[in-house]
Amino acid sequence: MKTHPLDKALDLVHSDIQAGCFTGATSPDYWNMVGPFGGTTAAVMLQAVLRHPDLLGEPVAVTVNYAAAVGEGAFEVLAVPVRTNRSTQHWTIQMSQAGADGRPHVTTTGTAVTAVRRETWGTSDLPMPEAPPPAAIERASIGPARAAWLGQYEMRPIIGSIPTEWDGSGEASETRMWIRDAEPRPLDFAALMALSDTFYPRVWLRRAKPVPIGTVSITTYFHTDGALLAEVGTGYLLGRATGQQFSNGYFDQAAQLWSESGALLATSNQIVYFKE
Amino acid sequence: MKTHPLDKALDLVHSDIQAGCFTGATSPDYWNMVGPFGGTTAAVMLQAVLRHPDLLGEPVAVTVNYAAAVGEGAFEVLAVPVRTNRSTQHWTIQMSQAGADGRPHVTTTGTAVTAVRRETWGTSDLPMPEAPPPAAIERASIGPARAAWLGQYEMRPIIGSIPTEWDGSGEASETRMWIRDAEPRPLDFAALMALSDTFYPRVWLRRAKPVPIGTVSITTYFHTDGALLAEVGTGYLLGRATGQQFSNGYFDQAAQLWSESGALLATSNQIVYFKE
Repeated sequence: MKTHPLDKALDLVHSDIQAGCFTGATSPDYWNMVGPFGGTTAAVMLQAVLRHPDLLGEPVAVTVNYAAAVGEGAFEVLAVPVRTNRSTQHWTIQMSQAGADGRPHVTTTGTAVTAVRRETWGTSDLPMPEAPPPAAIERASIGPARAAWLGQYEMRPIIGSIPTEWDGSGEASETRMWIRDAEPRPLDFAALMALSDTFYPRVWLRRAKPVPIGTVSITTYFHTDGALLAEVGTGYLLGRATGQQFSNGYFDQAAQLWSESGALLATSNQIVYFKE
Repeated sequence: MKTHPLDKALDLVHSDIQAGCFTGATSPDYWNMVGPFGGTTAAVMLQAVLRHPDLLGEPVAVTVNYAAAVGEGAFEVLAVPVRTNRSTQHWTIQMSQAGADGRPHVTTTGTAVTAVRRETWGTSDLPMPEAPPPAAIERASIGPARAAWLGQYEMRPIIGSIPTEWDGSGEASETRMWIRDAEPRPLDFAALMALSDTFYPRVWLRRAKPVPIGTVSITTYFHTDGALLAEVGTGYLLGRATGQQFSNGYFDQAAQLWSESGALLATSNQIVYFKE
């Protein structure tokens, strides 16, 4: 059976399992313009936690900071459960690569909270926006020609697709789209982490101008357990992203991902560097 | 001159300045029901970064994870600049306290990104909501009797004040309020970090039911530099917080803080444990 590209990208070997030390390598399938797609890097950071033998529960919150460019090739990920309570566990995560001097350099830092969740009262104050069904929306034609990772997703933008004319005419920063893996793969936490970073930079939409950008930090909260993810399976998610504040080289964007049946699976925020 | 209570709470002594190791103590002025107000803890974590001799730039993003209860008394904070680039710097932060066994135990983890910001294009897609001027809104009467830290803030809630009858009648999760330090103090980054955590748990408002809660992780993005903070000075901020998804023991809330003249200074998100 053919291995899914995301499973290849997430393939970690434990070099010292008790210490939480794993090795892996960047994936050409998820290459972005000058490095790996940040969503895959975040998913790999989370995957080290999920693979750790001492893991308690399932992910609730993950923060990943992009400290330096990740180069093509091998990397190490260190996931440490710094505090384990009765039903929650706190993790620090670090990715490093050998530098030009042969010594390991930190490229990515992060933290995660995992927890054993129990059934409680619940409600949503962020209901899924109205949207035509996925089949009614054309699949976006931007694809691997632009960057390999885009070819790994089936995106069906409802509003706010990537500008085709960079004429400075932008006036809003919201995107809504149906999205799922281009090659079907049942949804899991690592995939959901990556999906929370699939919204292109809001500054491009807001300005209709492709300025250089780079995410510096992303935080994703999970509102689902494994059972709900299994129900979603290979179905579409409705994603929404909006820009918030753009000033002096940084902007933040908020994103949400709902299942097709309307369950809010993840909320995510990121802050992004931009030039000019 | 009398020292401001927040300056007392933020008073760190460097035990090993080059290693980024500081010591401090919890403040009775900002005591919450069973431990220090989480906003002060987050501010202390950021303060260690701000006091570090190798600091580059000003805060852009801070994440703090509440791994365990902080007890009354002394603590250590370790702030490490793990990666310094040309204009950005990435930090890991850890707070620890001596446990019953006399050994240090991690209570709080975190990361921060600081940066030298440059003037660029900018705009806001989160304009300040309409609000009557602060003088037109009555000051909330909940105060130090409930928890000491509440007495340190002057809060003037416009909508969504804390329920006075816990009768299960809640139906919305939004609060808007004017807020500033009760004892005037010019706004700085540490104070803004603390302010981003001053919104009481959305689940109490949404359900009009005071269930046990605890923030597990908060992330605050700063959209201001020191010059803009200086302009705000001791003025009011307009704060807004809304609940997003409540399910199986955790909910997230999004918050924003604007200056009285309408500049969005910080956006913040947190995920909170709740019982039942």
